[in-house]
Amino acid sequence: MRVLFAAPDAYWPIWAPILTGLAPEMELVRDADPASIDAIIHAPNGPISDLSPYVNARLVQSLWAGVERIVTNPTLTQPLARMVDPGLARGMAEYCTGWALRAHLRMDAYAQDGTWRNDLTPPLADARQVTILGMGELGRGVAAILGGIGFRVTGFSASGRAVPGVEVFGPGGLDRALAGAEILIALLPDTPQTRGLLDADRLALLPRGAWLINPGRGTVLDDDALLAALDRGHLAHAVLDVFRTEPLPPDHPFWSHPRVTVTPHVAAETRVETAAPVAIENLRRAMTGQPVLHLVDRRKGY
Amino acid sequence: MRVLFAAPDAYWPIWAPILTGLAPEMELVRDADPASIDAIIHAPNGPISDLSPYVNARLVQSLWAGVERIVTNPTLTQPLARMVDPGLARGMAEYCTGWALRAHLRMDAYAQDGTWRNDLTPPLADARQVTILGMGELGRGVAAILGGIGFRVTGFSASGRAVPGVEVFGPGGLDRALAGAEILIALLPDTPQTRGLLDADRLALLPRGAWLINPGRGTVLDDDALLAALDRGHLAHAVLDVFRTEPLPPDHPFWSHPRVTVTPHVAAETRVETAAPVAIENLRRAMTGQPVLHLVDRRKGY
Repeated sequence: MRVLFAAPDAYWPIWAPILTGLAPEMELVRDADPASIDAIIHAPNGPISDLSPYVNARLVQSLWAGVERIVTNPTLTQPLARMVDPGLARGMAEYCTGWALRAHLRMDAYAQDGTWRNDLTPPLADARQVTILGMGELGRGVAAILGGIGFRVTGFSASGRAVPGVEVFGPGGLDRALAGAEILIALLPDTPQTRGLLDADRLALLPRGAWLINPGRGTVLDDDALLAALDRGHLAHAVLDVFRTEPLPPDHPFWSHPRVTVTPHVAAETRVETAAPVAIENLRRAMTGQPVLHLVDRRKGY
Repeated sequence: MRVLFAAPDAYWPIWAPILTGLAPEMELVRDADPASIDAIIHAPNGPISDLSPYVNARLVQSLWAGVERIVTNPTLTQPLARMVDPGLARGMAEYCTGWALRAHLRMDAYAQDGTWRNDLTPPLADARQVTILGMGELGRGVAAILGGIGFRVTGFSASGRAVPGVEVFGPGGLDRALAGAEILIALLPDTPQTRGLLDADRLALLPRGAWLINPGRGTVLDDDALLAALDRGHLAHAVLDVFRTEPLPPDHPFWSHPRVTVTPHVAAETRVETAAPVAIENLRRAMTGQPVLHLVDRRKGY
């Protein structure tokens, strides 16, 4: 099979040796007659945005978990698969767990000012509700780790998917999911249904003093509504890894707000060691006519 | 049985209803003829330091996990039991996991200064070695949670105790345990053998950039050696919850050192809901001649 590697130049020395090492039968190219291409490995920040010439490509395998930048591309007629990378999911679980514990343990209450504040001991995790919006691969991975620590984990799933050990609210249950969320973790994809979901009304449903952790997609959040909720003390803190514009512009108020922590879209990276085998598996499936994994549903957008 | 509650006044309204609720047969008193006392519930910051009049007490049940302040009391002739409280152990695991993740994720590298530093993504936890000194109830609880997240967990145990899933270095292996410790968690009791254990030579064995987390006992650490190791950049950061003098004096250099975080002995508290049943179980065992749990070995000091 001849596979086009349509990702930034910087990815090539990292990915190419591992991909070709896993699939010696594959001819991995960066440029070729489009009609000769059997499949495409794609990143939206790479060189290819017009997919129409690739008339014989049987699969576009995204290297990114989020596909909002390609799913709406009108030149995309080929099947599109998201990257579901176990390494990315592990990184996401580590990030969310670390920040949830920082909130839970009130780490930031201990100013280094010589004052011995030993009356602030938090409750144990089993008295702390963490609510996860989005129970896909990432949300379920986070739920498993947080549940293992002892947190009371609840979730919201637009599809109403059941998750063992987690109370999951389905469509129509979002408001109830938010009502108890002392720590809210947003892991929703960017779709027409999720854009602006966390607006002033929904943020007001959170219990006073709640933390918001958003490592999903920046469009979920109404930035101004969040700032207002933080300013009036309804929310205690927001940890934001994703933004409507990335990199977040230096003059954005998130950078200077004392109750906001900005991390620069680092919560979860595709990890070549764990993602390359997933891509190869999917390419081989496409070549042999087997069902492709993690196929994107274009109506849902993910 | 008549049990003396020898703990600070502030403990009484918290503990007494729960203890007597669990053991209606017990007469819990705060003052009585010492010879009439069958057992003592004791906290070292309470009113009783001379235990010699309690000639008929069959057990001194500590409310604290650390017993260094009572085990050396020359008036103590009765059997002494440590508090092994599952709630305290869970709190300790939460604290250690939260701080280990803060170190691992490099949370403090993301200054809120408008700079998009997205080239700092840490490795996954399975490429990060956490080393736990002390594999007692607390160390094993921390190891279980950290292992569940994916960290490479190693341990040091003075008794050489084997722990499933953890590479444990026994006596003589301390230097090797330290050599790989990117994140070192000290959970050692205060004994003659552990005092000053983490001195300049041993801190120098840690890999450059290591973090130290000490929620065990302050005497384990040579304070000046730690400050020197931080000053020369060999250690990246120290999170200290316990100190040679508590509360830590306001003028102690730990408070103002940029690479030290002081928390005020809050890593793990005895939780009355989970500890009271342990105390009652042990009192009943002592009354009926059954083996007492968590008996302190006076030669070892814990």
